Amino acid sequence: VGEFDLIARYFKRPARLAELGIGDDCALWQPAPGTQLAISSDMLVQGRHFFADVDPRTLGHKALAVNLSDLAACGAKPLAFTLALSLPEAEEAWLAPFAQGLLALADLHGCELIGGDTTAGPLNICITVFGEVPVLNGRSQALLRSGARPGDDLYVSGSVGDARLALDVLQSKLALPYSCPAHVFDAARARLESPTPRVALGLALRGVASAVIDISDGLLGDLGHILEASHVGATVNADGAIESIATYAYSSSATGQFDLNMSQAQWRALALAGGDDYELLFTAPAVARSAVEAAAQTSQTPVRRIGQIEAAPGLRLVDNSGRSVAHTYRSFDHFA
Amino acid sequence: VGEFDLIARYFKRPARLAELGIGDDCALWQPAPGTQLAISSDMLVQGRHFFADVDPRTLGHKALAVNLSDLAACGAKPLAFTLALSLPEAEEAWLAPFAQGLLALADLHGCELIGGDTTAGPLNICITVFGEVPVLNGRSQALLRSGARPGDDLYVSGSVGDARLALDVLQSKLALPYSCPAHVFDAARARLESPTPRVALGLALRGVASAVIDISDGLLGDLGHILEASHVGATVNADGAIESIATYAYSSSATGQFDLNMSQAQWRALALAGGDDYELLFTAPAVARSAVEAAAQTSQTPVRRIGQIEAAPGLRLVDNSGRSVAHTYRSFDHFA
Repeated sequence: VGEFDLIARYFKRPARLAELGIGDDCALWQPAPGTQLAISSDMLVQGRHFFADVDPRTLGHKALAVNLSDLAACGAKPLAFTLALSLPEAEEAWLAPFAQGLLALADLHGCELIGGDTTAGPLNICITVFGEVPVLNGRSQALLRSGARPGDDLYVSGSVGDARLALDVLQSKLALPYSCPAHVFDAARARLESPTPRVALGLALRGVASAVIDISDGLLGDLGHILEASHVGATVNADGAIESIATYAYSSSATGQFDLNMSQAQWRALALAGGDDYELLFTAPAVARSAVEAAAQTSQTPVRRIGQIEAAPGLRLVDNSGRSVAHTYRSFDHFA
Repeated sequence: VGEFDLIARYFKRPARLAELGIGDDCALWQPAPGTQLAISSDMLVQGRHFFADVDPRTLGHKALAVNLSDLAACGAKPLAFTLALSLPEAEEAWLAPFAQGLLALADLHGCELIGGDTTAGPLNICITVFGEVPVLNGRSQALLRSGARPGDDLYVSGSVGDARLALDVLQSKLALPYSCPAHVFDAARARLESPTPRVALGLALRGVASAVIDISDGLLGDLGHILEASHVGATVNADGAIESIATYAYSSSATGQFDLNMSQAQWRALALAGGDDYELLFTAPAVARSAVEAAAQTSQTPVRRIGQIEAAPGLRLVDNSGRSVAHTYRSFDHFA
């Protein structure tokens, strides 16, 4: 398969949004009047973001999902994306399912593949995604990191920690006991390999949330970006965050159905610094609690209140009874 | 150096165009009314697009140049770009000159770095570039591949073949004779490592050229894309294309100052199928010859007429005296 055949066979589809899509020097496209573009770029590298033997279908899904998650964190509606792909070889058995996983998620969000590049080389997937945000009376409706104010509530969507649990098991850093049912690990692994970008929640939080970020490097590390951009501090209930671990594992373990033999500290580390969650972490004024609840319902996304924004700088952790918990968690850093 | 320090230190500069640049989940930016976006993405991989020991400053230049070349081929004005970078390590001695080379070319074209991603991994540079094209009376002014018509002239800008000459020497596929002055090779190598995107020519060709492409995979291969998109054929003067090799080498060789010991066939192969030229290959109606000349002068870019578009499909090569030349040249294909 040659380079151009490859693009045509797996990725070329009729252009909808773009006036001119794949196949010229550039994609051409005129954004709707009164809208702002939201643009984000993420690169996934084999051995770093995924294992060499990962199912190419889930990899296609994840490569787009992590980009859509950035749009979600801005409250942007997905419109289009470009795909640059470095591949060791043009192998149909890999490309076909990769394209399927990628385009299935793209279709789900009406996000059109408008261009890109393919080359031979170590497996690397770089997606740049484009979304739109309305501008009303000259004001962008985009959700930023910088809007958190003292007194605001802190929320997290869905569940955190599951992806890291699966990663630790896959890397043999953690062994699940024999009593642990297979579907518990499968559920956690699905969260690692096929994360759900919280696009609908991001849209529903426009005009409600004061600051938003998506969790890729770990809850506390990404919260740090909100605190820095907003010049505020926060107190987070570490156990409230644990309770947002969705895996059947935690709740079953807590109810004694089986025991993962993990300490409270281990659970906290998964929830607070696990990473790869692609949930939304956001703040909203206390008066907006019912609006947050409505946004969660509209978007069919569970949301949990886990802390408070404060004027005093810094990040404080407490347990369920309000006692201070030592904060030793580190955010993920590719070069640390 | 941590990941976030790294971004801040080398790449973060005050946002101009973008309402919100590097440092939030997305870059935000509202395109000017009445304009169309042109978007292109190119990925450069070590060992494939550049050597491991290439000067990082020229690599930074080239990574953006090949993307700007795509905008030039659409007649789009550069506005902004995102940079995704996979690096084996965050090494200042590499990053500082890379950023300098990249941002110097960006500044030259007023093209703003608005976002991106950094990760650890095999060296890989993925840039997505954004330009704008005016829409007049509902018609996009973008230059496409599909507008060539029988009777149109075929032109190439600048010079072709030099980059491939340098590459062949660097890969020891070609040995320069001792009589060849060092600056001949240096000039060819500069064309390989620091190509000049023909942005000004692309802008000047709006409303003049009927079809345009930039030459990355070789003149004939890229011409094939125009012929296919326009449903036409062409006759190309193979020797006219050779004469557009700018390297001091050819002209000196031709005038007998020194001899590279290369056959006519070798020169033709460099010019017609060399690749990595980043020149514009374009067509224009015969009535537009003076307009093409004016565009060349406005943009201070040499332009040479090398052939003719015809209704009969296929690509025919002739020599200076009009005799048929066998066409055995292959376009560059990453997976062939």
